Amino acid sequence: MKFNPFSQKIGIVGGGQLGKMLIESALPWNVAYNILDPDPTAPASRYASIFVNGSLTSRDKILELAKDSDILTYEIEHIDVQTLIELKDQGKVVIPDPDILRIIQDKSLQKSFYAEKHIATSPFEIFNDEDSLSEALPKIHGDKLVVKSAKGGYDGKGVWILTRSEISSSQRGFQLDGSDYVLEAFIPRAREFAVIVARGMDGETKSYPSCEMVFDPELNLVDYLISPSNISTEQEEEIEALALKAVKSLGGAGLFAVELFLDEKGFFYVNEIAPRPHNSGHHSIEANSTSQYEQLNRILLGLPLGETDLRSPVVMMNLLGDSGVTGAYEMRGLDYLMKQPRAFFHWYNKAVTKPGRKMGHLTVCADSPDEALKIAQNVRESLKLVATNKQSN
Amino acid sequence: MKFNPFSQKIGIVGGGQLGKMLIESALPWNVAYNILDPDPTAPASRYASIFVNGSLTSRDKILELAKDSDILTYEIEHIDVQTLIELKDQGKVVIPDPDILRIIQDKSLQKSFYAEKHIATSPFEIFNDEDSLSEALPKIHGDKLVVKSAKGGYDGKGVWILTRSEISSSQRGFQLDGSDYVLEAFIPRAREFAVIVARGMDGETKSYPSCEMVFDPELNLVDYLISPSNISTEQEEEIEALALKAVKSLGGAGLFAVELFLDEKGFFYVNEIAPRPHNSGHHSIEANSTSQYEQLNRILLGLPLGETDLRSPVVMMNLLGDSGVTGAYEMRGLDYLMKQPRAFFHWYNKAVTKPGRKMGHLTVCADSPDEALKIAQNVRESLKLVATNKQSN
Repeated sequence: MKFNPFSQKIGIVGGGQLGKMLIESALPWNVAYNILDPDPTAPASRYASIFVNGSLTSRDKILELAKDSDILTYEIEHIDVQTLIELKDQGKVVIPDPDILRIIQDKSLQKSFYAEKHIATSPFEIFNDEDSLSEALPKIHGDKLVVKSAKGGYDGKGVWILTRSEISSSQRGFQLDGSDYVLEAFIPRAREFAVIVARGMDGETKSYPSCEMVFDPELNLVDYLISPSNISTEQEEEIEALALKAVKSLGGAGLFAVELFLDEKGFFYVNEIAPRPHNSGHHSIEANSTSQYEQLNRILLGLPLGETDLRSPVVMMNLLGDSGVTGAYEMRGLDYLMKQPRAFFHWYNKAVTKPGRKMGHLTVCADSPDEALKIAQNVRESLKLVATNKQSN
Repeated sequence: MKFNPFSQKIGIVGGGQLGKMLIESALPWNVAYNILDPDPTAPASRYASIFVNGSLTSRDKILELAKDSDILTYEIEHIDVQTLIELKDQGKVVIPDPDILRIIQDKSLQKSFYAEKHIATSPFEIFNDEDSLSEALPKIHGDKLVVKSAKGGYDGKGVWILTRSEISSSQRGFQLDGSDYVLEAFIPRAREFAVIVARGMDGETKSYPSCEMVFDPELNLVDYLISPSNISTEQEEEIEALALKAVKSLGGAGLFAVELFLDEKGFFYVNEIAPRPHNSGHHSIEANSTSQYEQLNRILLGLPLGETDLRSPVVMMNLLGDSGVTGAYEMRGLDYLMKQPRAFFHWYNKAVTKPGRKMGHLTVCADSPDEALKIAQNVRESLKLVATNKQSN
C-alpha cells in the first residue's frame, strides 16, 4: 500500500448523483475530488476541490481534469474514451481501464465480447441497414424482439421492444442512418437482477449479494429494487458466479454493475455491464458492510476491498420527477419519512425537476423484504414534489 | 414542519471535527452550511458554503456568519455568547439557546444550576481568593480534591486533582487571579459515563443508550469508549433518567452530552454537560439508528427526532497525535484497519499533529463489546503517524 493513500486526488468525469455519493462515502477519509461536468449546479459540484465546467466529450476538458488528479474515474459511460486511453498510455491511472469502457460504450462490441468469452447472454445479431436487418431477423426467434442502438442509449432511451411486424413497418422508432444496432431475442416474463462486482488493482474480486430490480412499465426505469433476491441459494451462487466471470473476463480493476435476466426456464443471461457505481447498488450505503461507493474509493486508492455482505433486508426506490411538474420545485410530506426508524433519504440537489427524472432515492431496511417494501411504498406516497414559480432558495 | 426544511442554511460557530461530522451527516439531504473558524484549514472548512475566517469570540465575525444563515449552532463552548444572545433577541434561531451556553460556559454557574434543580452532582464550593478557598476547603471531604477553572477549561486543561496539602502549597498549579474556581469532591475510583440527549423544538426528548468512557491516565483524555455500558438494566434506566432530567431542566432544544460519574456505592452524579455533539457520541454514526450528528441536524431543521437505539456493541477510540511528533505528518499502517469488516476510520484533516491532539477516531462494531475492543486495540497498534519534512501533498 502507498503511504498516504487518502492524499491522492481523484478526478471524476461526470458530476451526477453517482459522483456525489462517491464523494460522500470518503469524506470521513478526507479524500479530495475534482469534477468535470457541463452543469455547474450538478449534484457533486458543491464538494469538488476543482470543478471543471465543460463537456464530458471534450478532450481539452478531460485533460484539464486530469492535470491535477492522481487517479481518474468516471460515473457515466458517454464520455470521450479516446482521451482516457491516451492518458492511460501516458501513465495516468484510469480506473476502470478505458479499453473496458470502449467495449461497454458500444452494445455491439459488448454483446460480441460476451459471446466470445462464452458468457451467457441472450441471442443477438448486429445490423446497420435494411439488408443486414433482413439477414438478422430470421436468426432470432420469437415474435417480440429487442432493438438497441449500439451507442448512446441510456435509461431506456435507444431501446425498442417491437413485434416482428412492427420492425418491418415505418412505425418502428429507430432510424437506419448507418450506425450499428443490436437485434436481441426478447426474453418473455424475464425477471431482472443486478450483481455489483468489485475488482482491486491486485486482482482481488468480490461480488455483492444480488438484488432484484422491479421496473415501472411506463417509464422503463427501475421502480424499486429488493435484496436479498427471492431466488434459491443455488441460484444466488449461480448469478454471482456468472457476474464474477463476466467481470473477470473484462480484465481490469474497478467497480462493475452486472445486469442479468432470469428466464422462465431458470437460465440466467448477462444483459449489460456498467463500469461504475450503479442505481442497483444504492442500497449498499445502508444495507451492506461496505457500500459500492466506498468500495470504488478503496479500489481507486489502492486499499484492500471491504466486505460485501448484506446486513439487512432492504428496498431501494428511485424518487422520480412527477409527471406534469417541470422546473423549480419544493419537497413536501417529509414528516412521515422522517419518523420511519430505518428509512434513509437521498436527495440529489438537482436544480430542476422533469417527469421521470431521478431526483433522489429512498432506502428502507427492515426485518423482511416485504416489510421494507411496505414502508417504502408508504413513504413514497407521502412525499410530494410541487412546482414553484421561483427557484427554491 | 416547514416546507423545504433542507433549504435552510445552517451557520456553525467553529469548524472542527464536530462541525465536519455534522455536515457529513446531512450531505444526503444537501443541507448547506456556513462556518466560522480562525483556521482556514479547519476540518469542516472544505465543505462550507460560506467560510468566515475569524475568531470565535469576535462579535463582528459572528454577525457576519449569522447574516446568511437561517439557523445558528455551535460546536465548541468558548465563543462569544453575548452576541448569540443578542441575535436570539432579534429573532434569529440559535440552537441550543445561548442562555444555556452562558450557564455551561461557567462551571460555577453550571454546578450551582444542578444544585438548584436538585440534579445529583458531586459536592462543590466556589472560590476566587485565598480567603474563600480557606472557607471552602473544610466543607468538602476527602484528602484528594478537584479544582476547576470556572471558565475556559477544555480537554483536561483547567482541571487539577490535588491533595489537601498540595492545594495549600505553592505547587498547586492554579493561579488566584480573581477569577472563579470550583472546588469539588474527588470521587475515588469513579467510573465515567456519557448519555447523549436530544431535545426537539417541540420539546420531544430522546436519550441515547449510555456509553462508558475509559480515560488515558497520562493525557486525561478519553482513551476509548464502549457501549452498551457494563451496568445493570436498572442502572441504565437510572443514568438515562438523570441525564434527561438535567437536559429538561436546561429547558431548550438541542443536542446535549451529559457526562456522569458512578461512585463505588452505586450513585450517579452529573459531572458536566456539553451543549453540542460530543466525543462520547462519535460511535453513534455507525452503531445507533440515528447518529448524534443527524439528530442535531433534525433538531436544527425542525424535523422529528430519529430513533436512538444501539444496533451493535461498539468501541470508539480517539486517534491522538503521537508524543514526539509535531508538525506535518503521514499516516502509515492503514492496511490492517482496512481489512477489518466493521472498523470505521474517521480522519479530521488537520494540517499538523502535536502530541495528544485529536487527529481522528476509530469506531469498531462487533458481536460483543470485548471483541470490538480487541479489534480496535489491534487497529490502533498498527496505525502510525510519522513526521514528514514537508507538508504532505
